Formats: sequence, C-alpha cells, structure tokens
Amino acid sequence: MPLMTGEQYVESLRKMKRNIYYLGKKIENPVDHPVIRPSLQCLIDTYDMALMPEYKGLMTATSHLTGHEINRFNIIHQSAEDLNKKTKLQRLMGSRTGACFQRCVIMDCGNAFYATTYEIDKAHGTDYFERFKKFITRVQDEDLIVAGALTDPKGDRSIKIGGEGQDKDLYLHVVERRPDGVVVNGAKAHLTGITNAHEVVVLPTQALRPGQEDYAIAFSVRLDAPGITMIVGRQSCDTRKMEEYADIDVGNKMYGGVEALTVFDHVFIPNENIYLNGETEFAGVLVERFAAYHRNSYGGCKSGVGDVAIGAAAMIAEINGTENASHIKDKLAEMTQLNEQLYALGIASGCEGFRYPAGNYMVNLLIANVCKLNVTRYPYEIVRLMEDIAGGIMVTAPSEADLRSKEVGHYVEKYLVGHNADAEKKLRILRLCENLALGTAAVGYRTESLHGAGSPQAQKIMILRQANFEMKKKGACRIAGVKVDD
Amino acid sequence: MPLMTGEQYVESLRKMKRNIYYLGKKIENPVDHPVIRPSLQCLIDTYDMALMPEYKGLMTATSHLTGHEINRFNIIHQSAEDLNKKTKLQRLMGSRTGACFQRCVIMDCGNAFYATTYEIDKAHGTDYFERFKKFITRVQDEDLIVAGALTDPKGDRSIKIGGEGQDKDLYLHVVERRPDGVVVNGAKAHLTGITNAHEVVVLPTQALRPGQEDYAIAFSVRLDAPGITMIVGRQSCDTRKMEEYADIDVGNKMYGGVEALTVFDHVFIPNENIYLNGETEFAGVLVERFAAYHRNSYGGCKSGVGDVAIGAAAMIAEINGTENASHIKDKLAEMTQLNEQLYALGIASGCEGFRYPAGNYMVNLLIANVCKLNVTRYPYEIVRLMEDIAGGIMVTAPSEADLRSKEVGHYVEKYLVGHNADAEKKLRILRLCENLALGTAAVGYRTESLHGAGSPQAQKIMILRQANFEMKKKGACRIAGVKVDD
Amino acid sequence: MPLMTGEQYVESLRKMKRNIYYLGKKIENPVDHPVIRPSLQCLIDTYDMALMPEYKGLMTATSHLTGHEINRFNIIHQSAEDLNKKTKLQRLMGSRTGACFQRCVIMDCGNAFYATTYEIDKAHGTDYFERFKKFITRVQDEDLIVAGALTDPKGDRSIKIGGEGQDKDLYLHVVERRPDGVVVNGAKAHLTGITNAHEVVVLPTQALRPGQEDYAIAFSVRLDAPGITMIVGRQSCDTRKMEEYADIDVGNKMYGGVEALTVFDHVFIPNENIYLNGETEFAGVLVERFAAYHRNSYGGCKSGVGDVAIGAAAMIAEINGTENASHIKDKLAEMTQLNEQLYALGIASGCEGFRYPAGNYMVNLLIANVCKLNVTRYPYEIVRLMEDIAGGIMVTAPSEADLRSKEVGHYVEKYLVGHNADAEKKLRILRLCENLALGTAAVGYRTESLHGAGSPQAQKIMILRQANFEMKKKGACRIAGVKVDD
Amino acid sequence: MPLMTGEQYVESLRKMKRNIYYLGKKIENPVDHPVIRPSLQCLIDTYDMALMPEYKGLMTATSHLTGHEINRFNIIHQSAEDLNKKTKLQRLMGSRTGACFQRCVIMDCGNAFYATTYEIDKAHGTDYFERFKKFITRVQDEDLIVAGALTDPKGDRSIKIGGEGQDKDLYLHVVERRPDGVVVNGAKAHLTGITNAHEVVVLPTQALRPGQEDYAIAFSVRLDAPGITMIVGRQSCDTRKMEEYADIDVGNKMYGGVEALTVFDHVFIPNENIYLNGETEFAGVLVERFAAYHRNSYGGCKSGVGDVAIGAAAMIAEINGTENASHIKDKLAEMTQLNEQLYALGIASGCEGFRYPAGNYMVNLLIANVCKLNVTRYPYEIVRLMEDIAGGIMVTAPSEADLRSKEVGHYVEKYLVGHNADAEKKLRILRLCENLALGTAAVGYRTESLHGAGSPQAQKIMILRQANFEMKKKGACRIAGVKVDD
Repeated sequence: MPLMTGEQYVESLRKMKRNIYYLGKKIENPVDHPVIRPSLQCLIDTYDMALMPEYKGLMTATSHLTGHEINRFNIIHQSAEDLNKKTKLQRLMGSRTGACFQRCVIMDCGNAFYATTYEIDKAHGTDYFERFKKFITRVQDEDLIVAGALTDPKGDRSIKIGGEGQDKDLYLHVVERRPDGVVVNGAKAHLTGITNAHEVVVLPTQALRPGQEDYAIAFSVRLDAPGITMIVGRQSCDTRKMEEYADIDVGNKMYGGVEALTVFDHVFIPNENIYLNGETEFAGVLVERFAAYHRNSYGGCKSGVGDVAIGAAAMIAEINGTENASHIKDKLAEMTQLNEQLYALGIASGCEGFRYPAGNYMVNLLIANVCKLNVTRYPYEIVRLMEDIAGGIMVTAPSEADLRSKEVGHYVEKYLVGHNADAEKKLRILRLCENLALGTAAVGYRTESLHGAGSPQAQKIMILRQANFEMKKKGACRIAGVKVDD
Repeated sequence: MPLMTGEQYVESLRKMKRNIYYLGKKIENPVDHPVIRPSLQCLIDTYDMALMPEYKGLMTATSHLTGHEINRFNIIHQSAEDLNKKTKLQRLMGSRTGACFQRCVIMDCGNAFYATTYEIDKAHGTDYFERFKKFITRVQDEDLIVAGALTDPKGDRSIKIGGEGQDKDLYLHVVERRPDGVVVNGAKAHLTGITNAHEVVVLPTQALRPGQEDYAIAFSVRLDAPGITMIVGRQSCDTRKMEEYADIDVGNKMYGGVEALTVFDHVFIPNENIYLNGETEFAGVLVERFAAYHRNSYGGCKSGVGDVAIGAAAMIAEINGTENASHIKDKLAEMTQLNEQLYALGIASGCEGFRYPAGNYMVNLLIANVCKLNVTRYPYEIVRLMEDIAGGIMVTAPSEADLRSKEVGHYVEKYLVGHNADAEKKLRILRLCENLALGTAAVGYRTESLHGAGSPQAQKIMILRQANFEMKKKGACRIAGVKVDD
Repeated sequence: MPLMTGEQYVESLRKMKRNIYYLGKKIENPVDHPVIRPSLQCLIDTYDMALMPEYKGLMTATSHLTGHEINRFNIIHQSAEDLNKKTKLQRLMGSRTGACFQRCVIMDCGNAFYATTYEIDKAHGTDYFERFKKFITRVQDEDLIVAGALTDPKGDRSIKIGGEGQDKDLYLHVVERRPDGVVVNGAKAHLTGITNAHEVVVLPTQALRPGQEDYAIAFSVRLDAPGITMIVGRQSCDTRKMEEYADIDVGNKMYGGVEALTVFDHVFIPNENIYLNGETEFAGVLVERFAAYHRNSYGGCKSGVGDVAIGAAAMIAEINGTENASHIKDKLAEMTQLNEQLYALGIASGCEGFRYPAGNYMVNLLIANVCKLNVTRYPYEIVRLMEDIAGGIMVTAPSEADLRSKEVGHYVEKYLVGHNADAEKKLRILRLCENLALGTAAVGYRTESLHGAGSPQAQKIMILRQANFEMKKKGACRIAGVKVDD
Repeated sequence: MPLMTGEQYVESLRKMKRNIYYLGKKIENPVDHPVIRPSLQCLIDTYDMALMPEYKGLMTATSHLTGHEINRFNIIHQSAEDLNKKTKLQRLMGSRTGACFQRCVIMDCGNAFYATTYEIDKAHGTDYFERFKKFITRVQDEDLIVAGALTDPKGDRSIKIGGEGQDKDLYLHVVERRPDGVVVNGAKAHLTGITNAHEVVVLPTQALRPGQEDYAIAFSVRLDAPGITMIVGRQSCDTRKMEEYADIDVGNKMYGGVEALTVFDHVFIPNENIYLNGETEFAGVLVERFAAYHRNSYGGCKSGVGDVAIGAAAMIAEINGTENASHIKDKLAEMTQLNEQLYALGIASGCEGFRYPAGNYMVNLLIANVCKLNVTRYPYEIVRLMEDIAGGIMVTAPSEADLRSKEVGHYVEKYLVGHNADAEKKLRILRLCENLALGTAAVGYRTESLHGAGSPQAQKIMILRQANFEMKKKGACRIAGVKVDD
C-alpha cells in the first residue's frame, strides 16, 4: 500500500468511532472540530509533505523490513545517519508548524520496543520480537499514526506503586487474564496527538520489581476499541479557536498540539498485540529507551519551534523599528545561541549513538539527557527574550473584534501601526508571540518541554548514571600524583 | 470626607458614564462585567482593608497636607519609613490578590509630579506645584482612584518623535491652545486599572527637546470626559471568566488585572488641571522620577505575587506527594531566593532614599533600577520552577466542565486524586498555577514585570548613569599604584 | 584608653610572642613579613581611618556599655541604623582595600555571643553574659583586634561528630576540666586575620546534642597563649610578594587577606574567659547567629571589593580604547547590577532586623541568607565579566621583570601601550584584574565568598526554614477557592 | 621519515637557538626549564601516544597528500569523520593533561590556509596553494610542531588599523619588499605553545580593506629565524614550579600550558613561505576560517579539561565524605551537564560540516560559534561548582613545605586527614582543584576559554550573521497569516 495523502488520512480517521470528550461533552466529529483540527493539520502535513519530491528521503525512508518506501516517522533506525535525519525532520516540522506535530512518539516508542522485545525473547524465550515486527510492518505499510501511552496518573506519589490505600487503577494494569489475551484497567495522562491517531502503544510508566507482574504490560490497541475514552486537556486560550473571529487572536490558526487523558476501562488486548507481559525486569529498560529516544527528539522539534519564536521576535523588531538597536541584536543572538544548542545536542546524540543487538540504532544516552535537560530551560528563556523584544503590547493589545469594530476599529488601525506594517500585520505577529509565550503553543513549547519525555530530575538521574565519575576520578588522581589501583 | 468603603467606591464608579470597549463592543456596565469585575475587586479590597483595624497605618497614612487619615496609596512620601511601608503594603496586596492590584500608579506618579512641579515653578515661575497640591489633596480627601498614563503608541520607533512621515498623534500632544486650557490628541497604551479609576494623570512618554513643546504636556482628567475611549486589552484566557463554569478553570476567580489602550480624541483640559505645558527640559525629569518610584514598586507587588506562586508550588507538591523530595525542596528554596531578592531590593531602595527640595522622599535610583531589572528576569524563573513542581498535568488537565460531566466526571474524579486531595482540590491548585504561568495573571506577573515601569534596556541605561564608574576607576588606580589626578 | 593609631596597633602586636608558620618555617617577625604585611595594612587602616574626622560616626561608634567612643568594628548593635552603618563601613573598607580586611569577625561573633549568653544565663542560671560584657568592654576600650574561630577540620564528614574511628581532636573539645578552667585540644581552619589579631573567640562548629558536652565550649583567648600555633595558608600567587620586583606583578601591593589553620594543642582557658560550657542546646544557636550576622556582612565587604573589580574593568576598557562599545557598556551594567544587589541585600537585611532580648539588634535571617547565597554566585560572574573586558592579555602579559629588562623591556614598552596609557599603567591595571580573578585577592573575593560564613547549602537550609511555606500555601488556597482550616 | 618519538622531538628543539625570555632573563635551555617543561610534556605525549597501538587512527591519520601515516594534529581534514576524530582527540588530550596541550593551532590554521590559498589562487592567479601544500607536506613528513600567530597587540583599539597617531608596528606588517621576500615588523600576543614549536604560521589579525596591503601578509617561519624574540607570559602561580618542594603545591606537576608575546623585529620571510601578500579581501576570510576551526576545537579540549575538574571534584567529595549528599550529586550532575554540552557542540559542529572547493572539510560555522560562546561561560561555572564541592580549604590549606616541616608537619598530617585519605592525598587533590580554579591551569581553562579563538562578542557577531533571520521571519509570517513576497 502506498503512502497516504493527507486527505486519505483524514478520511481513515473519520471512519473510526471514538469516544473523545472536550469541555464535558462528546465530540461527534473530531476531525472537523475547531479545537482539534489545527492539531490534525500537523499530521496532515506529515502525509502531504512525504509525497513532495523536495522532502523525499527526509520525510520518507526505506523500511529495512520490507524495502518499501515509508513515512520516516514510522522508521526503525538503521544508522547514525537515520538519527541525524530524524533530528532534521523534527526541526523542519517544528519550524513549519510552530507546534507539537505529535508524530514522533511511535518513532521513539517503536525503536524502544524493537530493541527490547528482541532482548526479552533472548531472556525468556517469548516471541514478542516477531509480534512487534509484524505490528510495525503493518504500521509502515498502512501508513498509520500510532500514539504512545506512558504516564500513569499515580495520584499520591509518596505511595509506591501498589502501596497501601492506593486505588490500583492509578497505575494501568491487568485485571483479567484470558487464553486469548488480557483485560487492562487504568488511565494514561498527557497523551500527545491521541485524538489524531489510529492506534496507540502502551507501556509501563516506570521500572518494576518482581511481584508487580500485573503492571508489567505493554501492547498496542486501536483507539476505537471498546472501553477507551479520551478527555482532551484544556489548553491556555483554547477557546479562541471557537470565537467569532477565530483568526488573528488565535496566533497560529493553522497548527496546534493536543493532549488527552485517556481512560482504559476494562479494555481487552488480544495476545498478538502484547509485547511485554509480566517480565518485570524489562519494564524499566523499555521506559528508559523510549525516554532516551524521546529526549533526543526534543532537540529537533523544540529547536524548530524555537525558529518560529526567533522569527516572530525578529519580525516584531522590524515592525517596531528597533531591529538595529544593539540590545535587540544581542537578544536575537542570545536566542539563537540557546536554540541552536538544542538542535546541535540532538544531532550530537544521534551522531554518537550505537547499535543494539536487535540491529537498530540508539542515541547516545548521556548527550540525549543533556539535550533534554537544556530543553527544560532554554525555551523559557527564548520566550522571555521574545517577550522583551515584542514589548508590553503583546499582552495588552486589542482583539481582532476591536480591529473589525465599527466604533473603535479606526482607533486600532491608527494606533497599532508599525514600520512597513498596518495594525493587522502587527497584531498578527504579536498574537503569534503571545501564542508561543502564553497561548496554546506555550503548552507544547514550554511546559511540555519541561515535563515531556521525563521531568528534569529524571534527566539528572540519568546523567549521574552515565557520567562515569570513577574514570574521571582516576584521571584526576593521575594528574595530581595520587596513586590509584587499576 | 472619610475613607470610602468598597461598596461606596463601586457606586461612585457606577455613576460615571465612560466609553469602555471589550471584544469590539461597548461595555454598558463595567463594574459588573465578568471580565472587569475581578480587577475591580482588587481595588475594592484596598478600600475595605483600609477600614480594618489590623491594617491601620499600613493601608492608611496621615496626609502631610491636611493631617487627614488617607489611603496610603494616595500618599506623598515623607520619609524612608513611608517608602518602607509602601513596599510592605504592595507585598501584602500582591500576595492577597495574586494579581496586579492597580492602585500604585498614582502613588508613584503623584510623588514624581509633586517633586517636579516644585522645581518647574522654581525654574519658570509657574504655579504647577499649587495646582498639583490642590489636585492631590482632593484625591486624598475624596479617596479617589487615579490611573496614570505614560506610554505613547509610537508606531515605528526608528522614526524619532515628530519625525518625517509620522502620524503626529502617535505621541499625545496639544492640538489647540485656548485661554482656559488645551485640547490634546493621541493615545496611551497599557493603562493599568484605567477601567476602575475615577481620573487619570497623563505625562509625556520620554525626555523632550526644545521644539517639542506640544508634546510636553502633563495633566489630570476625569475618565468620563468627552473624547476618552478605553479599549480593554485581551489577556490570555480572559474569556474563561465568561464560560458556563467560570470557577475552577479561571484559576483566580476573585482577582485580576486589567489594561486598556486609551484614546484621547480631542480632549479638552482646563488650565487648573495642567502640570507641565511646554517646559520640555522637565519632561524627562518627570518620566524618570515616575519610573524610579515605579521600579521600586515592583519589588513589593511582584514579590507578593511571587508568594502566591511559591504557595501554589508548595501546595501542589503536597498534593502530588513530592514535597519531601530533595530536588523539590531545592526548587522551593531557589524560588524563595529569587522572590525575596525582589522584596529586599524594594526595601533597600526605599531605605537608601533621599529627600527632594519639595520635601517628599525619593527612592535610591540605582537600587530601584537594579530591583526592576531583576523583576524582568526572576518571575520567569519562579514560574518555570513552579511548572517544574506542578508537573505536566498543569497544561493537560481536563476542564471543570469535564469534572461536572455525567459521562466523564467520574473518570476525572478517579484519576486526578492526590495526597489528602480530591480531584477538585488538585484541579483548583493546578489552575492557579496555570493562571500565573500562562493565564490572565501571567500578563501581570510575567510580561508586565518585563515591560512595566520601563523595559530592561531602560534600567540598564539608568544603571550605567548611576554607577559612578569614574570614582570606581580612581579607586582601582589607587590600589594598582597608578597615579590619578584629583 | 583612647582609640589606637595604626602604629600603636602594630607595636602592640610586635610585643606578642606568637607561633606563626609559613611555608614550613616559623616567622620571627610577622608584622614585617612581606606576605603578612599587606593583610596587616588593612587593619592598620581601620585604626588610622577611625581617627580621621571624615569617617567619624562611620568608623567609630559610641559604646552602649561605657558611652566611650569605640571603633565600630567592636560595636554591639543597638538599632537598624547600626546595622546599616555596618554595611556601609564594610563597603567602604572593601572598596578601599580590594581585599578581606578581616576585622568583621568580632563584630559578628561578638553580637552573637552577646545575645546568646544572655539567653543561656536565663535558661541555666550561669553568668556568661556578665563575663562576655566584661570581655567586650575591654576589647572596646583597649581597641583590640579579635579574630573568631568556628570551623573544625572534621576529616571524613560522613562520620558524625565523635563517631567511631574518628580522631576526637578533629572537633575542638575539652580534654581536661580544672577548678579554674578547662584545657582544650583541636584545631580551627580558615581563620581570617588571625595573624593580625590580639585575641580570638572560639565557638563550636555546629549544633550539638546532649552527650556532646565536651564539644560545647566557647571562649576567648590571647593568641600568645601557650599551645597555639598558626599555619598560614598558601594563597594563589602569594610568593609574588617576595620577588625581586614585588610591585606591579602583585596586583595589589598594599593590601591583602590572610587565613591560617590554627592549632590548639592543650590550651588552658580560665573560667572567666568561658562563655559556653556544656550547654549543648545553645551551640547551634550561637553558630546560627554568628552565621546570620556574617552572611549580612558579606553584602557589605564583597560589594566593596566588587567596586574595585568594576573600577578595574572600567579602567582597562578605557586603556584598551573600548569603553564606548555597546557590549562593553552592557557588561559594566551587568557587573553593577550584580554588585549592587549584594550591597542592597546587606542593607535590607539590616533594615528589616529585630531586637534580641539581650537588647542588641539582629539582622533579618531570611534576607541575610538570601544575601549570602548571592555572594556565593555573583562575584564569580563579576570576575568573569571583568576578564571578558580585560582581554586575554590579563593572563599572558610579561612580568615586571620583563618590563625592567634591558634586553626586552623596550619591546614590552612598545607593545603594551594603551589609550593614554604607557605599558606600566596598562600592566598595573591588568595585574590588579589578575589579582582579583586568580591571585591572592581571588581567595577572598571568590572562594571565601562561596564558603565563608557557611557554604551555599547551609544558606538553602536556612532559607527553607525561614520561608514560611505553610502561610504561603494558605494564601494560594484562598485564591484558588480551596478551603483551609485555620 | 617516520613519526618522531617524544625524545626525538625534544632533541630536535634542543638544537634550535631561540630567543626566549622569562622574568626578564633569557632562558638558555628552554626544554629543561622548570616553568617551560610541563608545557613541553604535553607535546611529548602527543608524539609518544601516536606511537602507541591503542591510539592508532585517533592520534594518527593518513595524509591525503602523501598517503603517509602522520600525526593527526597535522592533518588536512577530508570528512566529517575527521572532524569527529579531531574532537575526540582533543578531549582525550585535555582529560589526560588537564592543560592546554598546544598542538591544535596548526590543525586549525593549516586547514584555514589550505582552503583559502586555493581560493586566492583562483581569484588572483597566485600559487599560494602549491606553496602551502609543500609546507604542510613537510610539516606532516617531518612531524613538526607549528604554532600559529594571529593577535596583534593593537594598543588603543579606538584607533583603527593604521590610524593617526598609531605606532604602525602595533599591527604586524611588511616594512620592506625585496625580490626574494619581505621583511616584517610587529608582534603577536598570546602565542600558545610557541616556545615548544619548530615553526610558526602568521596571519593577519582581522579583515582588511584596500589600502591596507602591507598588513595583508601571511607566512610561515622557523622560530630560530633572526629577529624573533619570545617573552613568556606570567601565569598565576607559575613560580611554584621553581620552589624547593615543586610537587604537591604545583597541582599539576606533569603538564601545563605556555603563552608568549612574540616579537618580529625586522624578520625576513622568503617568497616560498608567503601565503598571502596584499590580497586584502582574503585577510578576513583566513581569520574567520581559522577562528571557526578553533572555536570547534574548544569543544574538544575544554571538555577534556572539564573531565579533570569533574574528576577532581568527585574525588574531593569522596575524600570529604560528602559524595552521597544530594546537593553534591546535584552539583556533579550540573557540572556534567555543562561539560558534555561543550563536547557535544564540538561533535555537532563537525558532523554538520561541509566541504570546501579545495577539498578539505569545514565545521558548521553557526554551531562552532555557539560552541565557543558556551566555552566562554561554562568552564567558569564548572570551576565554581568544583570550588563549592572542594570547600574553603582549597584556598587556605598549608603548603607542602608545612607538610614536610619537622615543627608543624604532624599538625598538617593530623588535621588534613580525609575519608580513606591521608593529608598528602587530600592536599594533592585540593591543589589540583586550585590549579584549575586559580593556578596555571586556570589561565587556559578560564581566561583562554573566554578569549582564545576570539572573545565572546566575536562569536555573537558570527552567530548574528549565520542565524538567517530573514528565513525565520518568513516562517513566522506564514504561520501568523501575514503575506510575504518570495
């Protein structure tokens, strides 16, 4: 089957009967809903661009399983070059959409599953690797969107998993075992792009110990399976997309991200879709690998969104007539300094990667974590500098409704003029800045940068593990003239 | 006349016929409008608290002009102690409202006018000082809210004021001179609390040169004067206040800030309300003094809002069950470290102040600018740390409508539970965090911190002027054994 | 007895027979030793300046015990104004010497002892307060230099005090109790100015528990008492003071700091000099109070040294011909921004202080700790910016010997010329920069800023204790609409 | 000719008669001088390691000119892989020596000359490329050390090159033109490793304009050529290497860096050694390319030295018994976070490089500049954190002479004990920390990181040039719905 067009993708989703809620009500027609549609558009672009000659080889790749041309988002990485292209692809999409384009999760999850199922089979004599290859081959060939589900709600984190007084469902787990599969119960939070996906792969939220076999479950499932309900999260300024003038004030009318709390209420998973089932010692492995790939991802996508923030800042400086002021140039240089680091760390973590026994290629764990830890900090400073350049008018400007108003529109036209710019142009750029700083895009560019793929403390723990202090101590001792045993 | 109650204040405003627009439509009844009301509530509190015994002497002061007990927001400072109380008052109100409570402008403007009109009179033989004393006495005795108006729209800033091709109205200026007063035209941006004020004082936006006399105009005017139109700025998430469930999702239901672009379309100003009229060399003096007082103010009010951010972070840590994790404690310590600096610099800039020839007391210019430059940076980092502690759920949580929904409400109840906290409690604190980070409060706590009272570059320029490098060079030379001429 | 002159002070020290070692050898004549003398000069200045009319009231104070005029360094603070003057005095001395001038310790220790002995007496019926008043009265009247000794060597810190396998002497303690006094054994590290002091006050290094009575000992003792040995620490570049050309390359020829590891080898302490003896619960109180006063001190002295760093940077920019470059001005503004914060936090922590039951005045604990935590960070950045402005020549410049050399001196003269500056002038300023960044002054301005008065983690712990998170949580809950019990 | 051994290298230098001055006196035997020798040792290691099997392919490479095996430091890069190996080689050497190992300059200069001479020839019909190939072939085959000379003394920088009142010699230039060559006069500052090199390549200090042909001169020359004088710069703590106990207190006894002001007093350069002569428009090209390669270099070498700093910090934490404290671990994680960024940016700037028309491979200009701008900041913070972990004893510890002293040695032994560490071990690690923070290594690790390969402002200028703001503006406009012309 060939690559789908964006339109075919939309139609394929339209046919699925899914339970999606927003503001307390079921959305009957998600693909056309004004709050969902911009997030869908990101994915539509990933289809349409894959068919454009100029993106061939970047948006597309050759499957090592079938030799077919596939969308690169569905790839199993074969080399450092694949990882390099991954970062470039992500920056391209981030800078194109100024939003979270949601399709990376399967790339990162898929590669983690590929490497890990191979190793589980070696250890346990299971056949997860074949199952997963079958799954990913179908995903590649049918050009599907597959979301990923990691984070359990957890509740009170001071109670360990399965601890006393805890509602067991706060961690997704097996509640019934049948010959042909299992029934799971629980929920997963923050699921990026889930409303726009055909299927989802689910994995445990953390490392597990013997005795926690029921939580050690990983699988894939169609999103129209009985028992699945998605509750779309509120984003800052989300309802601007539903206002009378849903254009300028939205900031980014075309694109957006979406996340949903997804409930699995007694969902049946057939055996062939299960890729981990009780092998507790591999839960942590799976999570860490997904996390590492995903931390690398943020170097690409967030630097892409950073390009939009920098472009918006440079544009508003032009409109304000301040772009030649030395302090403005200094701030643009600083924004670039921060943003390029994210990208370069994405590149370097791929370039310094290694091959797994399963044959696919892994990022450098230390650099990927360093990359992500920067991601938890730099977008905030980039946004602050963008706000500095934009001026206070970013948060006090009149609305599009004021601009179009018969009574006060002429005032807005008159007093929001800029350098080579009428009020509408100025307002459009200001609203884009606001969108990135405070609006729907801030959800993805700021808070998701902080917590997605693991919160900063998780990166610090991995950095401490990877830093090899013992080797460095020996080096210091040698120089200092302190004898050390080898 | 005694101090007003909050209710009397509301009624006094209700009687005024003002032109206020929001989302393209005139607001007929601003004091009851759901988007305006929370900002009004901040001011109501400033009235009601001034009547409470526990705040006597802090919320109130004795007028040096009349000996009457007045609201401290209308004071002319007589000592470092007054400045110290100012900072404490501001922190109290900031921590109480979690918002911009809007009443500082007259305190800062008023003191700048008081000192400067005295000096203009000495230089020019004018009688502005008496006029201004009469004005401020009335403000004190009638317990009025007076907003301040500084920032002209400017348009293309690469064109100097009055430069070629510029619409002159982009800087407010005199368009007609009559025996009994002047007519002004123009607009002022970002006017904090203007919709809740009785009057406004207007001053030039920057230093002026001979030849720019028409721009050198300062005055006070009632906000129901003919020709004045206020266009309320859009804030992030503003319309949540008008939703069906306008409670939890608002984050801070009680309080808020408000800003408006205010147009002066051929407004007549009688002579007795004019405090600068063509004395160009004093335009910059007036602006700098207002700026210095206002930069000091931010040490108080923003540390107060910071208290709310820290409290929200500590509370969500408790709910998440993470408050004893060492990295969480470290982040709370860091937030406190940042926030207390703002306060302490407010205190120090008052403590190290000086007396003007007019008799009122001025903040230390260097420290006040240092204070404000921190304000342009630290709230952003405080917010980032708060988001770090809150977790990603801050931006992906379901809405109040979901919580109340018959279909999915039970899922929200089940999966958003926390430590000693049901889903509603957890959501309330998360929405408060969101409000400060991305919502209506972010307008005041972040972007206004950056640009209010002058953008960071303005502080740097003042710091360079106040730093006395020549004296420091001499000190360095003495130590280095380099001879210097005295 | 009147205030001493600097000369009288030097003679008073010369008469004392003390055991001072440097580079493995006993210094027979410390007051004239080239490595010690610059540190002595700081103290000489504190005597001579106290006799100058222009510093009266700042360098001097009136004793509340005797009504005598005393050197302010020996004061027991009576008001916030005293604390304010303390900060101003410290900045004055720091900017005059560009070094640690060493005389603050008794001011900070003395006030801690004054307040605490009063409270011990209340609790235990002891007479420490009277003893200490007698001591401090003598110090004031005889115009003595008294050093302070806090930090025990500790050894392996993973072993608690008195733990198994620990040499007990690693914490100074009582080894013998006699009717007329006690014998102590141990050592104290990093003793600032100890080689230039007449006496020293010694206190425990940390909070203690019942069972640790032998460590709960505080006293004063003359530094020529039998059993005391001082080993002067090596400073970076210390021996430049002993080179043939001990002028330019020293950077700061006049002034310096000094620290010594001081050993107490079975030293007898008579009862009248003991101020704590076994009351374990007051050990921590004493330490914390000293620490708080001393953390406040760093706001004054380090901002004074910062003035020298800024002056040196501005001067070398002038010499390089770069002082009008916008990035140089920006860096000078940033240095000022950082430095003034230290000072202002010193001021604010005094201004917001409170009175102890003993009658003397205490700094605000939260702000003093915030101040010191900044001190652990900002001087490093100030130095970095100074190095940025100075240029690489700061670390690659030829020596004074090269400048004076017949063979290559003309090359140095020719190629190190600057704007209105010959090579000698340029070298002098460069060497001052080097002194602050890497040389003897860096010891005090950088590393001592980090660790003196407690390392950063100690400040964080105090900040967490003082931050009142419970009150802030309640405030956040009120705003968020969460009910809290009072 | 095969690769030289370290010993052969030393002997080859010993035979050269060079003018090297230190502390005003000529050094008769530089290779054995205690201040020079540690810097020489770095280079000796580069020879000896190239002969070890385990470093083959990393320390060595195959010349694309001759096919011979050469030392990698003399390579002309043929691929991104070569650039990747360059970074790895530099990190290896930095972590081995804890110092500037000095041999990168020819690698960076050589590649800049290789690419640029090719293009000059294309533009001007000159034969510089052949000359340079002959030169670099000889360097490779004879396994020479070649230093590079860029920075002119400049004097007053507010006077442009050749400006009025300026001593022309402040910029090295041609003073005489002969048929067989030119005579140059001037000096070059900060020449790294020059005392340990056989030859030096000299290039202009900045971009030049028509009319400045005499300054547009680039060449190579032997360092024993008549007219060349090197004046070794003073480093902090340099003379510790000449003390009685020149071991522990030195911190790093084996290795060091060295820089010298090098005077060219009427030095004759034969035509065959000239690679630029009056083609002013290529001066800037040459400088920028050298700078870009060298900015990439710092990612490798400085992260190597950072490994030593981290190792020293981890080691002293172990000795202090604090390595399991959460704040210590956090600081070690932060140091690693900073250090790995430098390395990763080095890797990424190579990985994202491109090929010049001359055939050799160039780093990515934007990332290389981003890398270097980080280098101007992060080592300072790494050092600060190391000092934090080490404790104040780093700057107040007794000397080795004290440790060996009969009178006080036993006190030092007793009171400087640590966890599994006697006083000597503890002192050795503390002195290594001091060496990196304040001593000879700080020259290379801190100040050289700031200014070497161009000061931070130079990187900002390049970043602004490379950032492509126009493209980013267009991207922002597309998203914001603003029409842009293509």
